[in-house]
Amino acid sequence: MRREARSAFLRADDLGVLRGDGVFERFLVRAGQPRHLADHLARLVRSAHQVDLEIPPEGAWRAAVAAGVSSWTGSPEWEMRLVCTRGPEEGGPPAAYALGQELSPVLLQQRRDGVSAVTLARGLATGVGEAAPWLLLGAKTLSYALNVASRRWAKRLGGDDAIFVSTDGWVWESGTSSVVAAFGRRLVSPPASIGILDSISVRHLFAAAEAAGWETARENLKVDDLFGANGVWLCSSLRFARVHTLDGQVLAPAPAQRELYRLATSDEGAG
Amino acid sequence: MRREARSAFLRADDLGVLRGDGVFERFLVRAGQPRHLADHLARLVRSAHQVDLEIPPEGAWRAAVAAGVSSWTGSPEWEMRLVCTRGPEEGGPPAAYALGQELSPVLLQQRRDGVSAVTLARGLATGVGEAAPWLLLGAKTLSYALNVASRRWAKRLGGDDAIFVSTDGWVWESGTSSVVAAFGRRLVSPPASIGILDSISVRHLFAAAEAAGWETARENLKVDDLFGANGVWLCSSLRFARVHTLDGQVLAPAPAQRELYRLATSDEGAG
Repeated sequence: MRREARSAFLRADDLGVLRGDGVFERFLVRAGQPRHLADHLARLVRSAHQVDLEIPPEGAWRAAVAAGVSSWTGSPEWEMRLVCTRGPEEGGPPAAYALGQELSPVLLQQRRDGVSAVTLARGLATGVGEAAPWLLLGAKTLSYALNVASRRWAKRLGGDDAIFVSTDGWVWESGTSSVVAAFGRRLVSPPASIGILDSISVRHLFAAAEAAGWETARENLKVDDLFGANGVWLCSSLRFARVHTLDGQVLAPAPAQRELYRLATSDEGAG
Repeated sequence: MRREARSAFLRADDLGVLRGDGVFERFLVRAGQPRHLADHLARLVRSAHQVDLEIPPEGAWRAAVAAGVSSWTGSPEWEMRLVCTRGPEEGGPPAAYALGQELSPVLLQQRRDGVSAVTLARGLATGVGEAAPWLLLGAKTLSYALNVASRRWAKRLGGDDAIFVSTDGWVWESGTSSVVAAFGRRLVSPPASIGILDSISVRHLFAAAEAAGWETARENLKVDDLFGANGVWLCSSLRFARVHTLDGQVLAPAPAQRELYRLATSDEGAG
């Protein structure tokens, strides 16, 4: 495992690039501490299991993360990716590496100012992920072209990001974040079982919110529910961003924005 | 553009691997002739357009193909891939290359002996590709993890390959091939507009078959139609393989197997 980005590293015939065949995780490193690392390593194992990929053992990942953290010379808050491909098509070891990167200016701006989101059809029905595991729903694979395309289409439609909606009308997720909505002192986010990523950041936000007196629930949400909420957020390991506009309509203010931002980014229970 | 596979080539932060963000084509080279190259270059452009990716001009691809062909020292029949990624995440030129590879022994065996196929739910409805272009249906992107997974699941179910079926019961395609069925002297393959790849090999097979007195049609097929056909095939640029077994049931013999194999692999009209 290495972490140099700018020099050539992967073979041209690595299935990670030829087929998007591999898995990844992405998390925050703050003041030398990788955030929720144990959770990310556990999810990497689950994603690998979903695509039948043998990945290096946890100790090797932890060593790569530690080496990356100790050699980082950039900003105090940055992101790390763990990547594992299936390796060359003719066989051979997977390419496994940790990659450190600065947070993008867009991401920093969205944390501060929020985002305008548009809803996009995902074309799938709730529950299909469990009935059809070959669709790899909920796995963090390297095949993210659709996730990237959803953001591109959101921009064409005047937004910053997209929120996928299932054929049966339920809110799923954005291409890189989960959706959280507040109703009074109650926080709701859709359950992973509908066919979306099992969000580590939502889990930790909800734990912190419960400790602060919030009620939390993993429940299905309709798009109309979002319009009636006391705040909607896109929540990922890198970003807690309020949705200030949805499908071109300005949403009601989120009175708990400051409190929830603090809870979402606190380091209590991290590690 | 280069074509060496075994040495390091791509950066670890290339979006081709981090996001499966890029496009590709794959075709046969036989006796020094790239088969249907103009069609593949045109489809590469269409795929790139679907993902908003600027790719090198046709002349650069043709030069890379010619260089690859002239330096090839392997078997007389082999495959070439053209790949173009979006390049490093922080910006920079895409990684664009031509990659020559030997045909896999499994592929050669399937051409000869045919395949056992299983049907798998695709979870999407016919026409969603046109209504939701962000799903990138029909684009040959580097995000093929689902296509790869479908074959893995087919094997678990005792088959060699999978045929995707839409929620409304129509036959779509396999992960790497199109479906063709014969009914007497009539060949049928589903139209690309339902949400599948626009197959170059089917187009050329149909042209050759028409010249040989066959009727051809792009029409929707139900799974039951396949059970009643006088032959079912998986057809790609690399493989024309008869489906001898579908969902565990042995299919009726294909009286035209020899003739269609010849038409599918002929070089008339190629180039």
